[in-house]
Amino acid sequence: MSVYTPVTEAELRDWLRQYSVGALLACEPVAAGIENSNYFVTTAQGRFVLTLFERLPAEELPFYLELMAHLARHGIPCPAPIADLSDRYLQRLNGKPAALVTRLPGRSLEAPAAAHCAELGALLGRMHLAGRSYATYLENPRGPKWWRVAAREVTPFLEACKRALLEDEMAFQAQRRFPDLPRGPVHADLFRDNALFEDGRISGVIDFYFAGIDCLLFDLAVCANDWCLESYRLDAGRIGALLRAYHAVRPFAPLEREAWPVMLRAAALRFWLSRLHDHHLPRPGMLVHAHDPEHFRQILESRRGAAAPWID
Amino acid sequence: MSVYTPVTEAELRDWLRQYSVGALLACEPVAAGIENSNYFVTTAQGRFVLTLFERLPAEELPFYLELMAHLARHGIPCPAPIADLSDRYLQRLNGKPAALVTRLPGRSLEAPAAAHCAELGALLGRMHLAGRSYATYLENPRGPKWWRVAAREVTPFLEACKRALLEDEMAFQAQRRFPDLPRGPVHADLFRDNALFEDGRISGVIDFYFAGIDCLLFDLAVCANDWCLESYRLDAGRIGALLRAYHAVRPFAPLEREAWPVMLRAAALRFWLSRLHDHHLPRPGMLVHAHDPEHFRQILESRRGAAAPWID
Repeated sequence: MSVYTPVTEAELRDWLRQYSVGALLACEPVAAGIENSNYFVTTAQGRFVLTLFERLPAEELPFYLELMAHLARHGIPCPAPIADLSDRYLQRLNGKPAALVTRLPGRSLEAPAAAHCAELGALLGRMHLAGRSYATYLENPRGPKWWRVAAREVTPFLEACKRALLEDEMAFQAQRRFPDLPRGPVHADLFRDNALFEDGRISGVIDFYFAGIDCLLFDLAVCANDWCLESYRLDAGRIGALLRAYHAVRPFAPLEREAWPVMLRAAALRFWLSRLHDHHLPRPGMLVHAHDPEHFRQILESRRGAAAPWID
Repeated sequence: MSVYTPVTEAELRDWLRQYSVGALLACEPVAAGIENSNYFVTTAQGRFVLTLFERLPAEELPFYLELMAHLARHGIPCPAPIADLSDRYLQRLNGKPAALVTRLPGRSLEAPAAAHCAELGALLGRMHLAGRSYATYLENPRGPKWWRVAAREVTPFLEACKRALLEDEMAFQAQRRFPDLPRGPVHADLFRDNALFEDGRISGVIDFYFAGIDCLLFDLAVCANDWCLESYRLDAGRIGALLRAYHAVRPFAPLEREAWPVMLRAAALRFWLSRLHDHHLPRPGMLVHAHDPEHFRQILESRRGAAAPWID
């Protein structure tokens, strides 16, 4: 359960008068999510999600909300922020920055098949194309700069072999930056629980609060390490489907083929680091169990030890 | 049938590459509508409507498209224009200005009950509140200025009694302008066929191509003369439901009560005039039968002869 800030029905009813979404019919807290407080809100107009931002720096919030608005108006099925009567996406509620966004239909999948990975790949390609005209800049807040800070902080907690792995991977990544890869807004956290499906089609991509500007290929690597996993390796059928469907929408640049193995390792490193950090240095008041860091260490080891599948 | 400009599947497939809505799955011309060419377009991403603008001045199109975008991001269920990869709503296709908008679910009603009129009233209230922050100005293109032009043009075709009615109503209206009524963007053409319902709830308002800035009350009068009609009179149950639901969202100003009977007559006059004009002076190439002007003459006579129902 991860609602940090309670909101009563009376408070919400009052607050919604600043919007043109009609009267409140129902409100229930959302159990999933570990960074914000979320509520499912139903009004006379439709279904929405109310988010109270618990952690994110207030100055970064417009980047996320405007990005979702940008993608939504390009036809990407992502939560569309609702503007209030003063035409603002960002409001306050019970002392927290807050936003109302559309609630998308569908459910996330635990065990996606190759066809679902193809749906995801095509959508990611479309999202990256649509993101090209988004003008606001925010560096991926969990990019290489953050890795260095996090690595320094978690190192004292690591046993020798893991410390050696981390040092070695950090050194490897530092020598292999690709400044010329296609870049743009990336979701950067598109795990299975952040995609919704309905009747076999992808019906929504949610939770853009780790988005930032980075290599587009990084987004794909994050997806691959979650959607295509088979005993920590990449399942040939699913990774092929993901890459081919993406390529059909946004054809890969030659440099991206070269960068792919490095990017898969970078994506594993990023989540190993954040899970180590949440595990050893939990934020005060954090209500949920941190994910086990071991999962991404194993993925990283696997990516280091095996050739990265690619398409012909 | 009202598709003036043909579009082949190959042309559409090519054209859609400028958007991030995925590959074309199906396309069918839309029979309804008399002003533009419309196609239902299904892509890998969802359901859209493609509109080729046949009549509207190109410089007015941004007003309509931006208004729909504005209302949609305030949570109003209206067609949301899809931005292309260069971030523009307005494109060209086969020599015509063209736009792609979301296709809304639901069906229009022929015989709405009081509950449907209440749904409409609440939505219209929310739409007017959301429209308040829309900054672009376009005078209602079928407002009093246009009435004078149209009246002059159709008068030669009218028999004496209708000519007298038109002259008398024009004089009546000219003496009763209400510059202090609440104004803003109005749909101005919200007949039954421009609203969609699903499971008894209003699921969409479509066809904003007669919108403009005018008295908000005018929008309600247009609705009343279509949705609440009973042998040309206003059905007490339906008009009461419409007005009460609207008032609950945007409470009426005292002046609006006074203006209401005049506004009902103005709304009847506007459509009598346009139907007379389409009937006697059809545009070249107009493919559809013009509506019978008599219908709105009868409504106008009825509004002139009876007290206008209002809420307590």
